[in-house]
Amino acid sequence: MPVWNKEDLICTIGGGTGTSVVLQALKKIPFLNLNAIISVSDSGGSTGRLRDEFGFLPVGDLRQALAAMASNSKNEWIRQLLLYRFEKGEGLQGHNLGNLILTALQDMSGSTVSALDIASKIFQLRGSVIPITTQDIQIIIKYIDGSVEVGEKALDEKKGGCKIVEIRTRPRVKLYKKAAEAIERASYIIIGPGDLYASIMSNLIIGGVSKVIKKSRAKIIFIMNLMTKYTQTYGMSAKDHLTIIENTIGKKVDYILINIENIPKSIEKLYLKDGDSPVIDDLGIDKRIIRAKLVKPVKIVNLKYDSVHRSYLRHDPIKLEEILRKIICREIRK
Amino acid sequence: MPVWNKEDLICTIGGGTGTSVVLQALKKIPFLNLNAIISVSDSGGSTGRLRDEFGFLPVGDLRQALAAMASNSKNEWIRQLLLYRFEKGEGLQGHNLGNLILTALQDMSGSTVSALDIASKIFQLRGSVIPITTQDIQIIIKYIDGSVEVGEKALDEKKGGCKIVEIRTRPRVKLYKKAAEAIERASYIIIGPGDLYASIMSNLIIGGVSKVIKKSRAKIIFIMNLMTKYTQTYGMSAKDHLTIIENTIGKKVDYILINIENIPKSIEKLYLKDGDSPVIDDLGIDKRIIRAKLVKPVKIVNLKYDSVHRSYLRHDPIKLEEILRKIICREIRK
Repeated sequence: MPVWNKEDLICTIGGGTGTSVVLQALKKIPFLNLNAIISVSDSGGSTGRLRDEFGFLPVGDLRQALAAMASNSKNEWIRQLLLYRFEKGEGLQGHNLGNLILTALQDMSGSTVSALDIASKIFQLRGSVIPITTQDIQIIIKYIDGSVEVGEKALDEKKGGCKIVEIRTRPRVKLYKKAAEAIERASYIIIGPGDLYASIMSNLIIGGVSKVIKKSRAKIIFIMNLMTKYTQTYGMSAKDHLTIIENTIGKKVDYILINIENIPKSIEKLYLKDGDSPVIDDLGIDKRIIRAKLVKPVKIVNLKYDSVHRSYLRHDPIKLEEILRKIICREIRK
Repeated sequence: MPVWNKEDLICTIGGGTGTSVVLQALKKIPFLNLNAIISVSDSGGSTGRLRDEFGFLPVGDLRQALAAMASNSKNEWIRQLLLYRFEKGEGLQGHNLGNLILTALQDMSGSTVSALDIASKIFQLRGSVIPITTQDIQIIIKYIDGSVEVGEKALDEKKGGCKIVEIRTRPRVKLYKKAAEAIERASYIIIGPGDLYASIMSNLIIGGVSKVIKKSRAKIIFIMNLMTKYTQTYGMSAKDHLTIIENTIGKKVDYILINIENIPKSIEKLYLKDGDSPVIDDLGIDKRIIRAKLVKPVKIVNLKYDSVHRSYLRHDPIKLEEILRKIICREIRK
């Protein structure tokens, strides 16, 4: 039986559903030390409403990561509770219960970091969810046509097909000390999958992140997105994605996981309606690449009261786990 | 050191803050088997809104009992989480997070009883919270002037000073099987404190309750309210309270706990404004009576967005525990 070093710390960087799937995969590997570093620039949906009304860090991505940490059979109700979305109720409709729980804990304890600690204790989660920064930020997106948008929400709603040339935060902030420690101590850093700008770059552009990653001796695993997104990565190939990541962190990644499984035509059609299409694999021959079947189709309806776009297709946590386990167990060596 | 029989089952009957205080007291006694039977006729406040919008049993009193079950130092955050009230947020304001959690669990699991079971597991509570009935009811209140009101909410808002002559439920329902079992198996049944009609009688009038209590060999402890309530018990003495209870259950109680501690004049004044005053002890000499100092003053502001009247004065769980422990340890015998 393959073994791994119990000292190994795994650190994911991302946010949203992509990171949630990776955490679900990693949770299947026993004894792993997990740190999930999560972006805090979300400004849409239930999260955006709570952020505006309560003035704390956005909770949606943090809550998804907490729920993923709770994903084993014993805690199935906890996961469901954290992910429950009110479909009726005046003022409640569209709100996510996990978001409300985190908001209440922020309000009671005075900070997002304490709220996450308390939630971990109450729900007996293994691993830590760490915000990339504890400061209140918005992201500023600059497009190739010279226009500028403010707020992550814009990445879901506007500027379809227009190439993003720069993304930064306002104000410019530093990464949270515990996020820095998690990266420094990691044996493996897993970047992605997830919205390239909204979930990944929104972490990597935080002050000090690239420096800490560069210094870290961790092996970096980059999980390529399955699909492009009209509002963020229209027409971008796998190489385009990789180049942006490597240019931002200032070093090469060690593993690139990329899907080779066919995407069902019916699902591809749904994406095409939104201007999204499968990420073309133009990476050629490269020892770092692991090509595998990684797809899990899901049916998610766009909810009327929530403008956030939801994906029809996800990475399969079972397939991901198999490969990540092999890497972590040193069965795949570079 | 005094000991009690570990087989002893304690069953409280009530709802609201009064029962919550008794549960907090009982929780201090280790190894006790606790069942809290809770009324489900509430129709006001956050609970009323959720009941109207989601169509499940009212959750407020159930949530208070759950929170009380969690009241020890290890679970202090759980208690606070269940009791947290949103003071802002469009549509959230006035809602109680514990109510929202129970509502979500009702929606996910399909029933209030399952929701309570799941909540007990998630929050690792000792003891069970059991609704008096699982059927959807409203209470009908008949006053001495011949008028009739529908819904427990009326007991907070209307008909001040007008004597209640009858209370019943619509539809007429039977008590929940597990509530019947808890009463049958109890060594001690604790009735009150709490709103005489809204929290206590709303349990005792449910079909089959008095019959099961009558048959039970449990010792019955009745904890007398500290104050009368203008909308329910205006001008009623201790004997008046006791008579209504004993007439309803069809047997004598075994212990009557009644407060002899002076109520601070400043607090009495606040009550007097609402037409409430201390319950006069006209019980005379009776071996069943335990007179003791039981008061804990609390400061609770009436919240603008919630019409429910909140009490300034409560029974002190520490003082209650001391006496209840003595009864349960057979140091006080009848």
